[in-house]
Amino acid sequence: MPVFKAPVDDTLFILHEVLNLDRYANMPGFSDASADVVEAIIQEAARFSEEVLFPLNQVGDQEGCKRSDDGSVTTPTGFKGAYDAYREGGWLGLPADPEYGGQGLPYTLHTAVGEYMSAANMSLMMYPGLTQGAIAAIQVHGTDDQKSAYLPKMIEGEWTGTMNLTEPHCGTDLGLLRTKATPNGDGSYKISGQKIFISAGEHDMADNIIHLVLARIEGAPEGTKGISLFIVPKFVLDDNGAPGDRNGVTCGSLEEKMGIHGNSTCVMNYDEATGYLIGGENAGLRAMFVMMNEARLGVGLQGQAVSEVAYQNAAEYARERLQGRALSGAKAPEQKADPIIVHPDVRRTLMTIRSFNEAGRAFLLWTALKSDIAHRSEDEGDAQAADDILGLVTPVVKGVLTDRGFDHAVMAQQIYGGHGYIEEWGMSQYVRDARIAMIYEGANGIQALDLVGRKLGMNNGRAVMALFKEIGDFCEANRGDEAMTPHTKAIKKGLGDLQASSMWLMENGMKDPDNAGAASTDFMHLFGLVVLGYMWGLMAKAASDKLAEGAGEKAAFYENKLTTARFFMQRVLPETALRRARIETGAESMMALKAEAF
Amino acid sequence: MPVFKAPVDDTLFILHEVLNLDRYANMPGFSDASADVVEAIIQEAARFSEEVLFPLNQVGDQEGCKRSDDGSVTTPTGFKGAYDAYREGGWLGLPADPEYGGQGLPYTLHTAVGEYMSAANMSLMMYPGLTQGAIAAIQVHGTDDQKSAYLPKMIEGEWTGTMNLTEPHCGTDLGLLRTKATPNGDGSYKISGQKIFISAGEHDMADNIIHLVLARIEGAPEGTKGISLFIVPKFVLDDNGAPGDRNGVTCGSLEEKMGIHGNSTCVMNYDEATGYLIGGENAGLRAMFVMMNEARLGVGLQGQAVSEVAYQNAAEYARERLQGRALSGAKAPEQKADPIIVHPDVRRTLMTIRSFNEAGRAFLLWTALKSDIAHRSEDEGDAQAADDILGLVTPVVKGVLTDRGFDHAVMAQQIYGGHGYIEEWGMSQYVRDARIAMIYEGANGIQALDLVGRKLGMNNGRAVMALFKEIGDFCEANRGDEAMTPHTKAIKKGLGDLQASSMWLMENGMKDPDNAGAASTDFMHLFGLVVLGYMWGLMAKAASDKLAEGAGEKAAFYENKLTTARFFMQRVLPETALRRARIETGAESMMALKAEAF
Repeated sequence: MPVFKAPVDDTLFILHEVLNLDRYANMPGFSDASADVVEAIIQEAARFSEEVLFPLNQVGDQEGCKRSDDGSVTTPTGFKGAYDAYREGGWLGLPADPEYGGQGLPYTLHTAVGEYMSAANMSLMMYPGLTQGAIAAIQVHGTDDQKSAYLPKMIEGEWTGTMNLTEPHCGTDLGLLRTKATPNGDGSYKISGQKIFISAGEHDMADNIIHLVLARIEGAPEGTKGISLFIVPKFVLDDNGAPGDRNGVTCGSLEEKMGIHGNSTCVMNYDEATGYLIGGENAGLRAMFVMMNEARLGVGLQGQAVSEVAYQNAAEYARERLQGRALSGAKAPEQKADPIIVHPDVRRTLMTIRSFNEAGRAFLLWTALKSDIAHRSEDEGDAQAADDILGLVTPVVKGVLTDRGFDHAVMAQQIYGGHGYIEEWGMSQYVRDARIAMIYEGANGIQALDLVGRKLGMNNGRAVMALFKEIGDFCEANRGDEAMTPHTKAIKKGLGDLQASSMWLMENGMKDPDNAGAASTDFMHLFGLVVLGYMWGLMAKAASDKLAEGAGEKAAFYENKLTTARFFMQRVLPETALRRARIETGAESMMALKAEAF
Repeated sequence: MPVFKAPVDDTLFILHEVLNLDRYANMPGFSDASADVVEAIIQEAARFSEEVLFPLNQVGDQEGCKRSDDGSVTTPTGFKGAYDAYREGGWLGLPADPEYGGQGLPYTLHTAVGEYMSAANMSLMMYPGLTQGAIAAIQVHGTDDQKSAYLPKMIEGEWTGTMNLTEPHCGTDLGLLRTKATPNGDGSYKISGQKIFISAGEHDMADNIIHLVLARIEGAPEGTKGISLFIVPKFVLDDNGAPGDRNGVTCGSLEEKMGIHGNSTCVMNYDEATGYLIGGENAGLRAMFVMMNEARLGVGLQGQAVSEVAYQNAAEYARERLQGRALSGAKAPEQKADPIIVHPDVRRTLMTIRSFNEAGRAFLLWTALKSDIAHRSEDEGDAQAADDILGLVTPVVKGVLTDRGFDHAVMAQQIYGGHGYIEEWGMSQYVRDARIAMIYEGANGIQALDLVGRKLGMNNGRAVMALFKEIGDFCEANRGDEAMTPHTKAIKKGLGDLQASSMWLMENGMKDPDNAGAASTDFMHLFGLVVLGYMWGLMAKAASDKLAEGAGEKAAFYENKLTTARFFMQRVLPETALRRARIETGAESMMALKAEAF
């Protein structure tokens, strides 16, 4: 049976000792988030994840969702009950606007508990996860009436939300979309068309489902300039604001997927459904990106979260499975064989995953804090600087944490040998579930292009320059600290590769945009490696300071941090040189073949 | 609908123009394999794979195998018919001993057609695949009576074979196995115990199933020194050699697996089943390794084969899917969008897979030819040298081609965006099927240990020295050839990393065996990269010679080879430096944590 234990100590270490949350007590919501409150929330989220969500994870995979002929969808056994408990726990509203019933607590804290919940049950957490994105779009672009009509129920979790972008012929290139919106004359529209891959599109958990749908108003310009966003509730609200008439939107079928079976992925048919414009005519893409950016961080978190739970199981198995003897002589001579964790190759695997998980967690929380500062700081300069970084690293969070998260689920599965391939052991599910995170909310190739083609050069590279400076300054500040030297040296080397590659891109991407495209995925990973290395630098610094103070019974925790940091610097970070070498070869050899030759 | 076209031109290029099969016409079997015969067989295998095997691939995945209460197993619709056609085509006996009804053709040719068949339907091909391993063991270790009793029927395919090694508590460490053998007094034994993960353990395709079973004779020494191998037929042969009484071996259940659903993976229960010793008392491991080595090459082939079919589908999708515009300006302005193959990142993906597939194919055929020379050459020196290399590279074929094959199936799936995650498109199956190849026949970590701990130092490193010399000589010989310079330079660089890492291993593995274990997986991949680079060197040389001669209408084929070689040298091979850097950091940071800390 799979196991999961929320990594509470590590989260608290990052929040308090690495990010020093208490420094931000002057921001709205942060004053309520005292260390005690934070710890209580984290502990409760851990309990809820371990005891309520996790036991349903395999159930969800095995049962999947079922669609009846009337288009209704039944979620796996126990999902509705767990969702109700989630809702009653107030988890959905944790970071939401208090004006509409939210608790207004830091998004950073929401991210911390989100990791546990997605690790425990990724499919189940997608139902409220999509709702978060819809809430964000309505919050930012909705009218006051729309906000008060929808937000309280969504923040409470009584209603859920969805994002409807993709159509069969149109995924990345939303300019091609065909779903039509025809004005009714009363301000509302008739929406008709088909959307696919709609997560949580139909289910039995909530009284209403608020679909946010991209469509083209009749006569709108072609391409992305003619796209608008609409609110299409499953049940149109009646005069009292309660779910009334059934709207013309139905689940036509469920997709048979590789994983996330517990989530209903729907083909949604819109047949003259009533919809309400949000964010202005032909301004749909902008409004959609509010959802999208939030969702991308959430997907990056899924990558890291599944990697964490997969790691924990692999570690447990490696400690318990007796097979063979240590190369350096028997370690458990009283038994017929040693546990396989004695083998360096097993440890290499575990340390690789672990060193990523811990840095990934720090990266997610560091990014979430940037989001909080961007949205809550009263200092405009601070807010702008944080918003710059947030925009810059969003594709990196999404692309790198999901690519690596999947790789690590595969590595964790490998520890199990043949048992890893058998469904009952649970490792296959982690691999199959993690796979989608590389694809949805913009496939990772698109994230890489977003980074290289848009984010890097924005405002003349202001964001990336600031980040490079922050990392460089960190290395400089710790140059004299002997304990930190191996770390700062390694980070500086990685940063050097990243800076050189950025220069190369500026020079050669201008000459030929294919050079930028050819470099994009390697650049994104190079960027991710350096940021993760920086996270390890911050964590190593915090740990070594604590040890210097005398950490008492927590000394082992900090020493393990330093060891894991060292492993990352020695074994993971040097990949930057390879990424740079690839980038600098340019586009020629990949563009030379004719399309027919493939 | 997925597509598959056997890469006939590429196979023929490697066989004739890179490996120059005609040079071996003096070896048994090769004289029958004239260019015409080879081409006819390759073409027929292509047709059979495309038309008979491939259409059943998704069927097998979706239906899976079914076990009835009586323990019988039904394979997916069409599997039996396709197997019959395979059998009637004489494919199983292609490389087998003519004395027992085989055709005695080169194992190299068997490998060439094997790729097509495994690409077309990996699950179905496992039924005869396991039979090949059993044939090899009986051929080498069986008595004359055993050979004449079993081989003709197995070579004809009327009976299939299995390998029974694993038990619930014992996979890699066979010394722990418990299955018992009790002498009956008449030379036969009673076999009792449970085996798991038995591929093709029970099915409806053949009149008999010949299980080769590892067990411990009562009173035998503990550990691997007390293991014997037994032939346990499903039906004990009667006096006429026909299947007679049902033996005490039954399928207790089928495993629910991540993939290869078309193959029946059985828990096999042995309850006083009649078994016949093969290969001598307590000499089971040696006999088993004959099967195992053959099977490892077959599994490496699966990795490459699935990568090939996944690539073909991704390329097809990339040519057809219209989405977005080329960064360098519209390429199909008459359409609403360009095909996604215009994007460098899509091409990077395709070229990465392609450059591996073609080199992997060459590596497999080059290795198969070593096997032919080792077993058929009359020159003892040649045979020994080939056998040295065969033993050395077997773990590399298995470990590297399956790790990369899986990675590439994942990359191919990514090209499809959301559709890649939907089962009906077929890409998920390739990923799920390819995953097992990294695990079975010795998980890839075991392959890496076999390479580093056993094969590298064997006979004072004779094999590896010879291979380094062969590659070095190739670079030296082509140093003056301007067209070859970029290739030989890159190969020499990679070879340098490999040699330095080998030296490091010799020095530091002696001091502390954990250093060898810590390096093993990186070393295996470093080794694989250099050998694949060497394959590209050989192919580039052949292609550039042909172009110099004037290749006529085949010029594009050779030019594409050179481009793909260039891509490999620029983008793939430089990974050797990273592997070396990791190796040289040693074991310390991965061994430092206490087991409980993971």
